[in-house]
Amino acid sequence: MKLSDIGEREAIKIISSILTEAENTVGIGDDCAAVSLDEDFLLVSSDMINSETHVPKDMTSWQIGWFSTAVNLSDIAAKGGKPLGILLSLGLPRTLDDSFLRDLMKGADKCATTYDTFILGGDTKENPYITVAGTAFGMVSKNNFMARRGAKIGDIVAVTGTLGKAAVGYYSLKYGLKNKNILSKGLMEPKPRVKEGMALAESNAVSSSMDISDGFASSIYQLSELNSVGFEIDSSNLPIASELKDLKSQFSDMDMVELALYSGGDYELLVTVTPSMFEVASKSVMEEGCSLVPVGKVISSSENYVIANGKKESLSNEGYEHFVN
Amino acid sequence: MKLSDIGEREAIKIISSILTEAENTVGIGDDCAAVSLDEDFLLVSSDMINSETHVPKDMTSWQIGWFSTAVNLSDIAAKGGKPLGILLSLGLPRTLDDSFLRDLMKGADKCATTYDTFILGGDTKENPYITVAGTAFGMVSKNNFMARRGAKIGDIVAVTGTLGKAAVGYYSLKYGLKNKNILSKGLMEPKPRVKEGMALAESNAVSSSMDISDGFASSIYQLSELNSVGFEIDSSNLPIASELKDLKSQFSDMDMVELALYSGGDYELLVTVTPSMFEVASKSVMEEGCSLVPVGKVISSSENYVIANGKKESLSNEGYEHFVN
Repeated sequence: MKLSDIGEREAIKIISSILTEAENTVGIGDDCAAVSLDEDFLLVSSDMINSETHVPKDMTSWQIGWFSTAVNLSDIAAKGGKPLGILLSLGLPRTLDDSFLRDLMKGADKCATTYDTFILGGDTKENPYITVAGTAFGMVSKNNFMARRGAKIGDIVAVTGTLGKAAVGYYSLKYGLKNKNILSKGLMEPKPRVKEGMALAESNAVSSSMDISDGFASSIYQLSELNSVGFEIDSSNLPIASELKDLKSQFSDMDMVELALYSGGDYELLVTVTPSMFEVASKSVMEEGCSLVPVGKVISSSENYVIANGKKESLSNEGYEHFVN
Repeated sequence: MKLSDIGEREAIKIISSILTEAENTVGIGDDCAAVSLDEDFLLVSSDMINSETHVPKDMTSWQIGWFSTAVNLSDIAAKGGKPLGILLSLGLPRTLDDSFLRDLMKGADKCATTYDTFILGGDTKENPYITVAGTAFGMVSKNNFMARRGAKIGDIVAVTGTLGKAAVGYYSLKYGLKNKNILSKGLMEPKPRVKEGMALAESNAVSSSMDISDGFASSIYQLSELNSVGFEIDSSNLPIASELKDLKSQFSDMDMVELALYSGGDYELLVTVTPSMFEVASKSVMEEGCSLVPVGKVISSSENYVIANGKKESLSNEGYEHFVN
């Protein structure tokens, strides 16, 4: 069977079935692998992008550097980790101008230092297509580690920040909007929730956590499967990004809830929170200048639902999947 | 300027000049980055290969998995580290058969477990060319860390194992030798010197260390530049691989010393050793079933030399460099 027949998620299942189970390690199927080091977990995560299948044509080399760094930091953030550093492996065509390399590294360095960490090294190799493989690593105390597993029936479902910023970026490029350079930043320069993740971890209020890079609904389905619970999302509570509301005036047939639920690229954190602890969790995120918005609850079900216009409907399991999309 | 005009090493210098210097970290320009964690260094290293510029046509998918894992472990070995885990990011064409993925992961898993570590995760993405970006991480106590910097005038230069195994593999493929599947293993299935590196680190006899993946002579030049010293290598002492000697009978014009010095792909460790400690170092490697062979000395010079047939000649700074080769 070809990879296009089986898709990315099935490919990952094949990989998991082959690998020898690591000792002292958790995290296959989580955002990061977590290696036991005394009282702490060492968190490690890798993410690869390439110019053919990932990088919008309008993305600058500076943005490629920022993006590659940010998406890896987001995985550390989702586990509550403090970043320790980033490695970037670059595969670059030999005909590329050296200014491309310079700008890419400036973007990567800016993103790393913005989140109090550093690009520590990597690799530089020739490749027919621009390929950037980033690895982030970080540390979190075992007590504070936020796994994908742990959601309990009755928990509050919440999301940091706003939804739809990446969708705005996508629209602005697709329709060549006048201020697309600004509007596309939500897509091209995502802001990983590093401080928010650390604050949530320290609050000890979170029962499960992941980032929603593949889309909100897709992430709900992943938490649902891992935890054998269902989710009920109230669409009227979704924190729609103000940029998306602004855009709505130009695209009257745009469904903002649809975009918030199903379009990927918003590097927010999706968490489940013990109800009695929600205020503590919310306050910890507010202290970092962000918000934690309750959007639903964990239910005893094998299905996931969205309440829209007073009607309870099935949530679709849609999102971006490699090889098949 | 195009990357092909400046070459890989100049590209790395550009990168170093742009990056913000990390706190509590050593290692830009070393085999690994080393992050300070109390009494230890966390070692991290990345290496990327792709099917267009790295992978010989005869390399099996199992071997691609083994190779990607081994070259990353070699960097940890060169610093004396105990491996903690490997991440592999895969960029794969959508038309690839799933058996390719399975065999690649089996090879990677076999290599990791052979060296008492594990593949902990990674990423799977679509890519027009098969691209594998590996990241290895490990730990070494600060007292035992073997940096590239530290070589002192008068130190003994030594190398683990034998030289020319990868060259034999290259020849066997180039000339389609009958038993090329066996002979090419030296090139396709390198054995990182993990236990030897850990033993050398614990011996505390080593003043500088690196692996010779880019070639012996090229590595000598890198140590020479970093340490502001010269090297004098006695070619009659080079541990030529028995496989290379066997091949010599079929290729009478083959220069074995030339191949040992200038062809890359042997994942041995090149170290400088305090003379009074050489026996300790040598014994520690022998206890791991390998040998540490003295091949020269560190001299007060800005040049590097090789003694061949009683004549002292300049060592050439030849080896594989990306973008320009």
